[in-house]
Amino acid sequence: MAPSKVVIVGAGFGGLAAAKALAKTSAQVILIDRTNHHLFQPLLYQVATSVLTPSQIATPIRGIFRRQKNTIVILGEVTGVDKDQKCVFVTDADRRNVPISYDYLILATGSTHSYFGHTEFERFAPGLKSLADAEAARNKILQAFELAEAEDNPAGHRDLLTFILVGAGPTGVEMAGALAVLVRSSLKSEFRRIDPASAHIVLVDMAPRVLGPFSDGLSKAAKTRLEKLGVEVRLGHSVEQIDSNGIVVGGERIASKTVIWTAGVAPSPAGKWLNVERDRAGRVRIQKDLTVPGHAEIFVVGDTASLDQNGKPLPGVAQVAMQQGRYAAKVIHNRIAGKRPPDSFSYFDKGSMAVVGKGFAVLQTGKVQVSGFGAWLTWAAVHLQFLATSSLRLTVFLQWIWTYFTGQRGDRLIVQHHASPAWPTARDDVPESAFVGK
Amino acid sequence: MAPSKVVIVGAGFGGLAAAKALAKTSAQVILIDRTNHHLFQPLLYQVATSVLTPSQIATPIRGIFRRQKNTIVILGEVTGVDKDQKCVFVTDADRRNVPISYDYLILATGSTHSYFGHTEFERFAPGLKSLADAEAARNKILQAFELAEAEDNPAGHRDLLTFILVGAGPTGVEMAGALAVLVRSSLKSEFRRIDPASAHIVLVDMAPRVLGPFSDGLSKAAKTRLEKLGVEVRLGHSVEQIDSNGIVVGGERIASKTVIWTAGVAPSPAGKWLNVERDRAGRVRIQKDLTVPGHAEIFVVGDTASLDQNGKPLPGVAQVAMQQGRYAAKVIHNRIAGKRPPDSFSYFDKGSMAVVGKGFAVLQTGKVQVSGFGAWLTWAAVHLQFLATSSLRLTVFLQWIWTYFTGQRGDRLIVQHHASPAWPTARDDVPESAFVGK
Repeated sequence: MAPSKVVIVGAGFGGLAAAKALAKTSAQVILIDRTNHHLFQPLLYQVATSVLTPSQIATPIRGIFRRQKNTIVILGEVTGVDKDQKCVFVTDADRRNVPISYDYLILATGSTHSYFGHTEFERFAPGLKSLADAEAARNKILQAFELAEAEDNPAGHRDLLTFILVGAGPTGVEMAGALAVLVRSSLKSEFRRIDPASAHIVLVDMAPRVLGPFSDGLSKAAKTRLEKLGVEVRLGHSVEQIDSNGIVVGGERIASKTVIWTAGVAPSPAGKWLNVERDRAGRVRIQKDLTVPGHAEIFVVGDTASLDQNGKPLPGVAQVAMQQGRYAAKVIHNRIAGKRPPDSFSYFDKGSMAVVGKGFAVLQTGKVQVSGFGAWLTWAAVHLQFLATSSLRLTVFLQWIWTYFTGQRGDRLIVQHHASPAWPTARDDVPESAFVGK
Repeated sequence: MAPSKVVIVGAGFGGLAAAKALAKTSAQVILIDRTNHHLFQPLLYQVATSVLTPSQIATPIRGIFRRQKNTIVILGEVTGVDKDQKCVFVTDADRRNVPISYDYLILATGSTHSYFGHTEFERFAPGLKSLADAEAARNKILQAFELAEAEDNPAGHRDLLTFILVGAGPTGVEMAGALAVLVRSSLKSEFRRIDPASAHIVLVDMAPRVLGPFSDGLSKAAKTRLEKLGVEVRLGHSVEQIDSNGIVVGGERIASKTVIWTAGVAPSPAGKWLNVERDRAGRVRIQKDLTVPGHAEIFVVGDTASLDQNGKPLPGVAQVAMQQGRYAAKVIHNRIAGKRPPDSFSYFDKGSMAVVGKGFAVLQTGKVQVSGFGAWLTWAAVHLQFLATSSLRLTVFLQWIWTYFTGQRGDRLIVQHHASPAWPTARDDVPESAFVGK
């Protein structure tokens, strides 16, 4: 009998956990991603703020599965699912959809940023989801200082040295803190006409407090810390406009040349591909065994799935995705092996953390709530542990120590990438590379 | 009296050496470069072949001059020189030319690749001069393996897995060797349908031997080593055509989707800016004190200068540029200080080296000619020594040891950079960023 074919779409936290959990099974695993790397998204803001280099938070997927012989890695963009024919469509070299059949399907396609209907904001306030996003943000931030240094008119400095982060969730807070440290330490003494420390960092959110998912106490601690770092925190007003000159919030215009979107998330189109019931945010409603109603062979996990636990929807965080990925793999393994299914999925919350600047984090797990240096050490240890390879753990660890004590950052390059494809061939004008035969 | 204003254009080896040598003088130094980093070009091929990450061979210029208070760093593109008004023009934010005046000018603007009149080749065979070039090459090379893995028809593998390097000087030889090691070690076991080791690497040159500037013996040793690594070396025929399907050399077509140009160099437009006598290659003819005839205040150094020594033109290598940069600084310092000028410039040749694959290099200095592992260790030590900062020396050293023993590379990411500017502002559509007031 041919081995069961398990197609996993997405090599983020969920897809990677599922593929790894299927290592020792008889299944044939096909892991499809539109990039060639697993991205450690929680540290993406550290690439945007020059602390880490892209290769320190991204690992080639092929390298991870080098020794896992039952797994094929495919670089390709999935564009749809045929539930009846049991196949997914992958964009191929000629922009055709090539079908890849499955016996079991795990959709772990994650989320992107949502502009809450204001798609016109994207042009002026890009988000942070991919390495390319983070490198573009880094270019933009560093270039603002270069432009200000070159500007004769001091009045022109103000908007160049104003950085606005829209969205005060973990990404916005961590980014604001990292920017504050960048301007006050790493860039110090490097300019002759401007003082980088005079940069104005503004964090805005329509919510009444920062770090929504955290307790009131930790939220206050984070806000106090941010303000101590010189960040202006503006809460309770939604952003009415974003254009090339800045934003309008609460009726007031803030002039800025650098606005970064750190607000809402929108799920991947997995729900549309499947044409099944979704929640208000667009995430696929799944059952307690993480399958889609009526399709025991289709699993949806992570940010693009919607599942309630104790009457509340599970959050879109890495921990949920990883636990769901492993669980889906377990269900499939048991079915292939003819064993009885595992108990219903239950998320075990190990807690949440967010860094604010240098040597300070907030940490919440169960009833425990701490903030400060100890929480930051815990944050560092946990994040190092979850990096994909031991060589990354070592280099990121060394980089953090280096940056902590010297203020020097790992990657402060402005690279003007070739806007037009510098490497044209008959085939490589495909949007996200990739494709594969059936 | 106002300090003498020394404008240095280009922060490559020559410009950097000049600026550093002016540290302890009373001069006001203005260092202009169109990127924000000093690039260690001799290791660029290691970024293109995934060994090193861009930040390991590029250092922010501002960081280098952080403590050198007499030096201003400007990110900007110089577009011309007015010898009479004594000023250079720098592209400013509105694409206007802003003049920056000088008392002394050092042009250290380097070279780019030359297609010997075949500019149509560039589209299909890009060169390796900038970080963006190297990252584009890396994307392209890694993507070829992904495309081949996805290709159903084995006949389609051949052209995808054929890599052609046009030009068998040091860059071509080093790139060919690094590619051979990449396909035979680092990519091993990572693909299921193709064998990366079956990749076909072809090095072509119209010259009758590789590594032209080296002795016959070392040239032969390098060629033998390349062939041992599986590289096909085709000499004595010029490339007649390059298109999206490969090249035609000596009347024969070699099908390939990845052609990289590692041949001729062309000097920067410094000679055109100055409108002075140039050699056949277009380099500015300079005098024994490195100044331009009739302009004792204008120095030209490095790849873009032409100077004979012992009846032979000095080669376009980092050593010449560095020694000339330091010499120009010395002349200027002496003039400012009212001292008598130093003796005429004389290049001291410390020797040349080139790496061929792993653990093998050729080395030539004076009458000494060696090849093998010892030469490679020397190469590694010398290159580490010339990296701009001690932290780079450490990380590159560790990376080399790691790659040597594990075959794992530092940066195997394919990043699809935003083709259109993801970060538009009113100002940042300037071609090479930057500018400055007078």
